[in-house]
Amino acid sequence: MKHIPLAAALLVSALPFQSAAEPAAPDPLAFVDPMIGTGPEGHTFPGATAPFGMVQLSPDTDATCRVRDCYDHAAGYSYPDPTIQGFSHTHFSGAGHSDLGDILVMPQAGEVRLDPGDPAKPGSGYRQRFDHATEKASPGYYAVTLADSGIRAELTAGTRIGIHRYSFPAGKEAHLLLDLRASLYDYPGKILWSGLHLRPDGTLTGFRETRGWAPGRKLFFAMRFSAPVANHAFLDRDENIPYKGFQAPGRGSDALAEKLGKALEARIDFGTLTAPLEVRVALSGVDEAGAIANLDAAEKEAGGASFDAVRARTEAAWREALGRLRIDAPAPMRTNLYTALYHALLAPSVWSDVDGRYRGPDDQVHVARDFTVRSTFSLWDTFRAEHPLLTLVQPEQVTTDIVKSLVASREHSPHGILPVWQFAGRETWTMIGYHAVPVIADAYLKGVGDFDADAALAAMVASADYAPYGGLGDYMKLGYVPIDREPEAASKTVEYAYDDWTIARMAEKMGRKDVADRFYKRAGYWRNSFDAKSGWLRARLSDGSFRTPFDPTAINYGSDYTEGNAWQYSWFVPQDQKALFDLLGGDAKTIAKLDAMFDYDVSKLDYSHAEDIAGLIGQYIHGNEPSHHVAYLYAYAGAPWRTQERLKQIVDSQYKPTPDGLSGNDDLGQMSSWLLFTGLGFYPVAPGSNQYVIGRPFVDHAVLTLPNGKRFTVETAGLSDANRYVGKVELNGKPLARSWISDAEIRAGGTLRFTMQAEPDKAWGSAASARPYSMSSAR
Amino acid sequence: MKHIPLAAALLVSALPFQSAAEPAAPDPLAFVDPMIGTGPEGHTFPGATAPFGMVQLSPDTDATCRVRDCYDHAAGYSYPDPTIQGFSHTHFSGAGHSDLGDILVMPQAGEVRLDPGDPAKPGSGYRQRFDHATEKASPGYYAVTLADSGIRAELTAGTRIGIHRYSFPAGKEAHLLLDLRASLYDYPGKILWSGLHLRPDGTLTGFRETRGWAPGRKLFFAMRFSAPVANHAFLDRDENIPYKGFQAPGRGSDALAEKLGKALEARIDFGTLTAPLEVRVALSGVDEAGAIANLDAAEKEAGGASFDAVRARTEAAWREALGRLRIDAPAPMRTNLYTALYHALLAPSVWSDVDGRYRGPDDQVHVARDFTVRSTFSLWDTFRAEHPLLTLVQPEQVTTDIVKSLVASREHSPHGILPVWQFAGRETWTMIGYHAVPVIADAYLKGVGDFDADAALAAMVASADYAPYGGLGDYMKLGYVPIDREPEAASKTVEYAYDDWTIARMAEKMGRKDVADRFYKRAGYWRNSFDAKSGWLRARLSDGSFRTPFDPTAINYGSDYTEGNAWQYSWFVPQDQKALFDLLGGDAKTIAKLDAMFDYDVSKLDYSHAEDIAGLIGQYIHGNEPSHHVAYLYAYAGAPWRTQERLKQIVDSQYKPTPDGLSGNDDLGQMSSWLLFTGLGFYPVAPGSNQYVIGRPFVDHAVLTLPNGKRFTVETAGLSDANRYVGKVELNGKPLARSWISDAEIRAGGTLRFTMQAEPDKAWGSAASARPYSMSSAR
Repeated sequence: MKHIPLAAALLVSALPFQSAAEPAAPDPLAFVDPMIGTGPEGHTFPGATAPFGMVQLSPDTDATCRVRDCYDHAAGYSYPDPTIQGFSHTHFSGAGHSDLGDILVMPQAGEVRLDPGDPAKPGSGYRQRFDHATEKASPGYYAVTLADSGIRAELTAGTRIGIHRYSFPAGKEAHLLLDLRASLYDYPGKILWSGLHLRPDGTLTGFRETRGWAPGRKLFFAMRFSAPVANHAFLDRDENIPYKGFQAPGRGSDALAEKLGKALEARIDFGTLTAPLEVRVALSGVDEAGAIANLDAAEKEAGGASFDAVRARTEAAWREALGRLRIDAPAPMRTNLYTALYHALLAPSVWSDVDGRYRGPDDQVHVARDFTVRSTFSLWDTFRAEHPLLTLVQPEQVTTDIVKSLVASREHSPHGILPVWQFAGRETWTMIGYHAVPVIADAYLKGVGDFDADAALAAMVASADYAPYGGLGDYMKLGYVPIDREPEAASKTVEYAYDDWTIARMAEKMGRKDVADRFYKRAGYWRNSFDAKSGWLRARLSDGSFRTPFDPTAINYGSDYTEGNAWQYSWFVPQDQKALFDLLGGDAKTIAKLDAMFDYDVSKLDYSHAEDIAGLIGQYIHGNEPSHHVAYLYAYAGAPWRTQERLKQIVDSQYKPTPDGLSGNDDLGQMSSWLLFTGLGFYPVAPGSNQYVIGRPFVDHAVLTLPNGKRFTVETAGLSDANRYVGKVELNGKPLARSWISDAEIRAGGTLRFTMQAEPDKAWGSAASARPYSMSSAR
Repeated sequence: MKHIPLAAALLVSALPFQSAAEPAAPDPLAFVDPMIGTGPEGHTFPGATAPFGMVQLSPDTDATCRVRDCYDHAAGYSYPDPTIQGFSHTHFSGAGHSDLGDILVMPQAGEVRLDPGDPAKPGSGYRQRFDHATEKASPGYYAVTLADSGIRAELTAGTRIGIHRYSFPAGKEAHLLLDLRASLYDYPGKILWSGLHLRPDGTLTGFRETRGWAPGRKLFFAMRFSAPVANHAFLDRDENIPYKGFQAPGRGSDALAEKLGKALEARIDFGTLTAPLEVRVALSGVDEAGAIANLDAAEKEAGGASFDAVRARTEAAWREALGRLRIDAPAPMRTNLYTALYHALLAPSVWSDVDGRYRGPDDQVHVARDFTVRSTFSLWDTFRAEHPLLTLVQPEQVTTDIVKSLVASREHSPHGILPVWQFAGRETWTMIGYHAVPVIADAYLKGVGDFDADAALAAMVASADYAPYGGLGDYMKLGYVPIDREPEAASKTVEYAYDDWTIARMAEKMGRKDVADRFYKRAGYWRNSFDAKSGWLRARLSDGSFRTPFDPTAINYGSDYTEGNAWQYSWFVPQDQKALFDLLGGDAKTIAKLDAMFDYDVSKLDYSHAEDIAGLIGQYIHGNEPSHHVAYLYAYAGAPWRTQERLKQIVDSQYKPTPDGLSGNDDLGQMSSWLLFTGLGFYPVAPGSNQYVIGRPFVDHAVLTLPNGKRFTVETAGLSDANRYVGKVELNGKPLARSWISDAEIRAGGTLRFTMQAEPDKAWGSAASARPYSMSSAR
């Protein structure tokens, strides 16, 4: 892949936000509302983080729930909750499953309580009530007043550090409680081991090893305080210690130099303070020395590691990152879009230490010599729109880092394959497919990222050929995943086939015809699970028959489909929608079936048992990913005006600038990335095709500063609620007859101009030659 | 300290075992019987190990016992047991408390059993019966036939690897079972986490993290097989997994690439083999990569890592190490002494990897750049005779490594102090005192070891001044440890005072008068806990009074004394025995009290509740360390002939060349080192004094090859049972009037000649000027 010299990369990142011809850009931070999605469904967090930061420092309103009882608290914070339990340093943004919530800190004034207590009984523990009116949340900053004590709590974060600032009421003794027992998606036995260590220089270090979503995950921290520690206590709250060992120094005292155990707490006393207390916390996945080095590095940055200095640096980083997309849109949409961009820039987050060391999928420490390792790969979600977005709105180095991290992970994977759903370097085996493959292929095919394509292709092929994974052995033998041997077989078959197609595309461009031929063949395997008679994708038994009974509306975990049913999954052939439509009987029947999906009366169906099923428009389920490309499929059937209608319907019903403004889990930016692309007027239905299907814009004007420094502008004339349809589409002043635009056209810079109108233009984009890529009729 | 160039060091280690004037030395391996001490009390193990090897590969006859029920199995093997459970890779030699027994492997022929089963019910599990007649044990080699299967099992070991060789009965399928659940001193919850990982190249790696005697101890391994793996299964036998996570590849199969959990087993199938199976296992305290590198390094050594090659290398290393002491003695004594030397050369064992990386007391990975890190420091035991012995019989580098390891440990200690009882880099806080201090001081004062004396002294002072440890804060304030604030206060006071004296001695030699003055003062603090009126060392309350009721025969854990009573502890003033004797009323009263101790009628006392109390001669308890110097104290009272009598009494009753031949725990070589010094005719009563007190020899002739290449010979004329007394003592041909010899005299090389006789020479050594060092009358 091509290499961008460092100087050029710096130049890109230092680009001004506007050219001489444009008015001064407003501060994008003003349009981000981190509270969006913190209501029950979105699973976002309101706390402070730097772009792709290793630290996500955020309030947890409840971290004492148990698996299955705490879905609403996947990100620690649930907007309706009346109390804050504490502030912890790691969170997922929008994940459907959860973990993290590490190193929970709670300030206390005067009396110290050691247990969180009951939210329904104020004062029963260290948790405190709060009023949303006292909250402030913006990129890199969060503040709240803890009502029971009057403590003002402020949070900010750099890439590998979080800074707390606590202003205690005058005259009250200041205390901090660290509760290493607290953890998101907690359950008995989750905490395998933990440690606390107060060093002679006043640095508090420690670690925690947990058996949660990520098995045997290790996290280390280093913490420093702006005020001297007057006293401290390290407590082991474990009531079931069968073997206590011999007593460490400090007999009869809790003021120990170190403590190890499974249920540790630290109480740090500062006496009465005259200035706010600042707490600087660095994390590391490697060891305590790594956390200390990350803390030292932050303290050595320009301005030091004071709260204000870190906040200023992080806000500048956000201005740069958010400023790559200048959006002018009606007020609620502008906030939705900037917030979506903010959410899209949280993961995959930085995982390696400042010295390049990181913990890999084998739980061993490795060194990344020429890139920053990233983790938190929610690939089943993010291969769709999040990763394609990053190739457009972030410096090329970000894509380089992502691809190198994926390939390095495969190198150290006990299975020799690319990540599936990975965080903190650890594989969780969540969801299906090998969707690191389309992420890499999409980047390669677009020419974005500086990585070893041969090593990447080898990793992709190894992952696609790994027989023990998800029925792949049978898939390779039979041409489909048989449901009697592997659950969710129908979904797996079609997703594997799509992933295979991206391997073929990349191999073809690399001149690896052998690989391309093999995987183009596999790209057609979706047909083997498609029941042409009924028109549904269906799970098939190893004897070749389709499994019965069959109910296209049934949604169950571990069923024939993955978090969905035949309604959603029967559309998943991004690599060859035309062939699918042919099987369905052609354009008219396809459009009718799409309409039937959106218009389905679901009032009599109950999907409440399926956590991820939210945001229903008939059987179109926007709150989960399998539906995300479906509204764009009308364009493949020659009816882009129907896509335009549906997009308006989806955007209006599924996104709001409020805490409950996301209809489903943000899924590490995928829900947000969908909105961003859709808002700009195009969407990557088939990453790897280098095409974006044109929908309709929701912005008046947007300027995208590309990784190569060029600009791509979207202009919309006549944007209004009434003008639901696209009339004229012009690229660089010339009419665009097709319903797609290529990645190369965007990267070349230029202007895509839409003119909106109240009536549909049913002719535009209807010609076969005007339709987006399908493998079976590829141009 | 002085530095021995490498070439000179190599020359030393390549010294031939005999000079032209001496007859060819017999193979010392023939005189070592690793079975000695494997009976209930000795806690030694019979398996294979290299000198100071990181791996101690040995059969475990029972590893399913529980704390307090398994004292007899502290080293895994108890001679009376009828079955072998398996072969594990780590063991203590003679420890009183226990842990380890890591990575237990059991070969099975034909059918595979997954649980150890009941020793009383043959065939109920994978454990197998054995007959001692089929056992062979010698330095670096162990073999046994597993009776239930007919498998011949052989073990050998290099420094960081163990090699198993299993000869399976013809036609039977060969299997190995790894039981990661098995652990010595096991109890529910001990295993925090573990992992198994079969790599594409056939290397099996894994780890285990345990919460045993050492908290949060991590051990990693890498294992390779001489035959290809036909099948494998990784099993999690945990029946209580509250959160199972998502399924890893290999659904429905146990043939997984990796498995994580708390109760793992691996079954490895090899099919029918035509040659014995060799299993090569390397350990690392750092990570799996470290274990692989250690395995690779062993495979790259001359001859490779075949069983025979590793055995040959290790036997050569033992010949070199044991050959530094050539012993001619009556047959049982020669075996006792060579076996004692063998046992003395097992710890402190190597802990760093081939690349110098190691896990420190902070659980973090560090790098030793210019020395080999050692751990397993049983310092309360070994400061007495084991470490002084190593300065005489091992290359100087060994002492250098030991001191540097101690000082490095202090650098990374969460408490900033030297090790107390450390293994696997982890502090256990077992026993009392800061006896790393006399180890370092003794080496420094003898001029042995190449280390930074300033850093070492700083570490010693920091340890002695660390107020939170064992009542040291009160000790420094009050001049003694008060029993109302700290258990075992009497023992602590006198041991601290001795340790302090060694700091003073070293500081004085370094010209650090400030430090010397302060610690010479503290060296007299033993007086503050001595009740001159009654003649006993007694525990004192913080108000100054002695604690009552007082019973000089009472032995209880956590009482006024440490694993002993006033009878043993009232003699512990190695730095100033004369002052003690003056307090007791002079020589005659002292001798009478010593006699009363040895001659005490203990038939009515029951010490069975105290595990370590064994080997009683009256109140002299040879099976535990506080008594070890006591027989030599007659010499300080001017009656060395009484020492001579007592030594014969002790040696005859406490050492036998049989499995039950050690009367107490060998304690990582201390019991053995006592016998070695005593056998040679002198003993280091006060390490740090540079004096050895002369007792009486039990050898006809012995030649010690010193670290400096010189030789020191002990010759005994007239050695017989009847000749219990020393008549003439000559050093280099001249009569020696004093009852001690200096370290410098030994290191200069020469000959110490004893003439034994039937009647005591009561005049020799009686003059005040002839007596060994006492601080209060130091010459």
